[in-house]
Amino acid sequence: MSGSGPSGEESFIAALRALAHDPGARGLTDDAAVLHASGALVATHDTMVEGVHWLAGQDPADVAWKLVASNLSDLAAKTCRPVGLLLSFMLGDEAWNTRFLAGLGEALAAFDAPLLGGDTVSAPFPDAPKVIGLTALGQPRRDPPPSRADATAGQSLWVTGRCGAALAGFEAVQAGSDDHALTAPYRRPVPRLAEGQALAPVVGAMMDLSDGLLLDASRMADASGTTFAIETRLVPIHPALGRRRREALSWGDDYELLFTLPEGAACPVDAARIGSVLPRGAHPLLLDGSPPLAGQPLGYRHGI
Amino acid sequence: MSGSGPSGEESFIAALRALAHDPGARGLTDDAAVLHASGALVATHDTMVEGVHWLAGQDPADVAWKLVASNLSDLAAKTCRPVGLLLSFMLGDEAWNTRFLAGLGEALAAFDAPLLGGDTVSAPFPDAPKVIGLTALGQPRRDPPPSRADATAGQSLWVTGRCGAALAGFEAVQAGSDDHALTAPYRRPVPRLAEGQALAPVVGAMMDLSDGLLLDASRMADASGTTFAIETRLVPIHPALGRRRREALSWGDDYELLFTLPEGAACPVDAARIGSVLPRGAHPLLLDGSPPLAGQPLGYRHGI
Repeated sequence: MSGSGPSGEESFIAALRALAHDPGARGLTDDAAVLHASGALVATHDTMVEGVHWLAGQDPADVAWKLVASNLSDLAAKTCRPVGLLLSFMLGDEAWNTRFLAGLGEALAAFDAPLLGGDTVSAPFPDAPKVIGLTALGQPRRDPPPSRADATAGQSLWVTGRCGAALAGFEAVQAGSDDHALTAPYRRPVPRLAEGQALAPVVGAMMDLSDGLLLDASRMADASGTTFAIETRLVPIHPALGRRRREALSWGDDYELLFTLPEGAACPVDAARIGSVLPRGAHPLLLDGSPPLAGQPLGYRHGI
Repeated sequence: MSGSGPSGEESFIAALRALAHDPGARGLTDDAAVLHASGALVATHDTMVEGVHWLAGQDPADVAWKLVASNLSDLAAKTCRPVGLLLSFMLGDEAWNTRFLAGLGEALAAFDAPLLGGDTVSAPFPDAPKVIGLTALGQPRRDPPPSRADATAGQSLWVTGRCGAALAGFEAVQAGSDDHALTAPYRRPVPRLAEGQALAPVVGAMMDLSDGLLLDASRMADASGTTFAIETRLVPIHPALGRRRREALSWGDDYELLFTLPEGAACPVDAARIGSVLPRGAHPLLLDGSPPLAGQPLGYRHGI
């Protein structure tokens, strides 16, 4: 069907089988996966497109890692441990498939996430832009899991990690750096699964940062019908960014957790308090007491 | 990002929201869906590619329907009722998006399947081949649900419906027919959800037919370590195919259920007994007592 042909598909599936050792995967020989859940189950899907979410020259192993990490980051924000992944994969040439599998295997092992099934398809013509997708299923530590809409006035606002780490990593990659510590947050982001689960008993609203702190915070404030007052000097910024604080606050891909806690509650994870939740005012955000300048983008907008 | 731009995406998501009325969808405003399951849960994913699984000229409403139907057919074979769908959608022009949504809404209503979430992405360039995917989650009527590997010697072999209905429909579409009854099995296949659930207490092995009766039967026989003896005159064939019985037996897309029952068991659904399960012999299949001719294709081969 495609340039890679059925033999490429068969060898890919054979290699995938070695990664799908959970009994629920049924060895990838059946038509569907079977898992066992009790209580609430969280389901999320991310699709990535060559030329939109990654560039043709990128290491396919990093693409695979990011696909897994970005999905698991959504689960982390729901206090979940991952219980199953389904992969949608468009076959490329053998070198591409092999590197993708290497990164996929590394991510599955790093995050203890069972691959249960999925689908492989052929490209309609050689060099058609690749499209890959992942569905992630997780079991939350509480039911209902937190949403974006659970912030209430009086709560405190927190964020894990350092904003702009992905931007610093992206710029290092663009500059040809081989400093792995610097490029890793962009190439190999780590979803905050342990933090999300540890926050379950106490957290109010929670979401992961994918489109930039300011844009995601304004969305959470809107969903909750509140205003978030952020003190920008309290937001930890990646040291490589120096004085580019505003850029760091509106760059995506950081996969940190943004969340609220009840007034006075101690934070059970390593995170920074960056502001407070106020009753809804005229704007969703106040930065150091003022609304953001109109026309200045808060972050990166994309799909649901 | 693409020719359709963010406004196309926003109006698509707004329209999708009207179809996602299950509370677990959280109005498509959160980052993940939440569902409640007890016991076993079945998960399956299908991806469809323009130029591979459908042609550019096809009605997008039919493409949407088939995406839903083919996924739910996998659930049917696991004795499931659908409990949640996640859609991966690549935005096209407004006319395409609108027709797709129309077919999606019709299929969701017809099969009582709740849309819970998903992802929308932009095409990397105008006219890039579209890729769409669907994850379907179902609750099986029994645990473990039947697999391909559950056939044992002495069981009888059954199939629902009439083989070749999709082939007859495809040929009618190619010929420009507007006979809806004839084209529907190709354009609008109906997954056998009720039959799958009714078979739960008694069925042995079960799978849905997607790649042709003979190929799928040989896979089930292989997975079970048995040989299937099929009496081809017992297989109901769509009347439009006249004497083209062999073609009907090796054409895909019928989405019927192929299953085994214990010896002497009555079949609780409308289906035809087409053969028996034998101890494993030299071949997975015997057709009217003889192995299929070498070199003659049994069906259509594609992904996992």
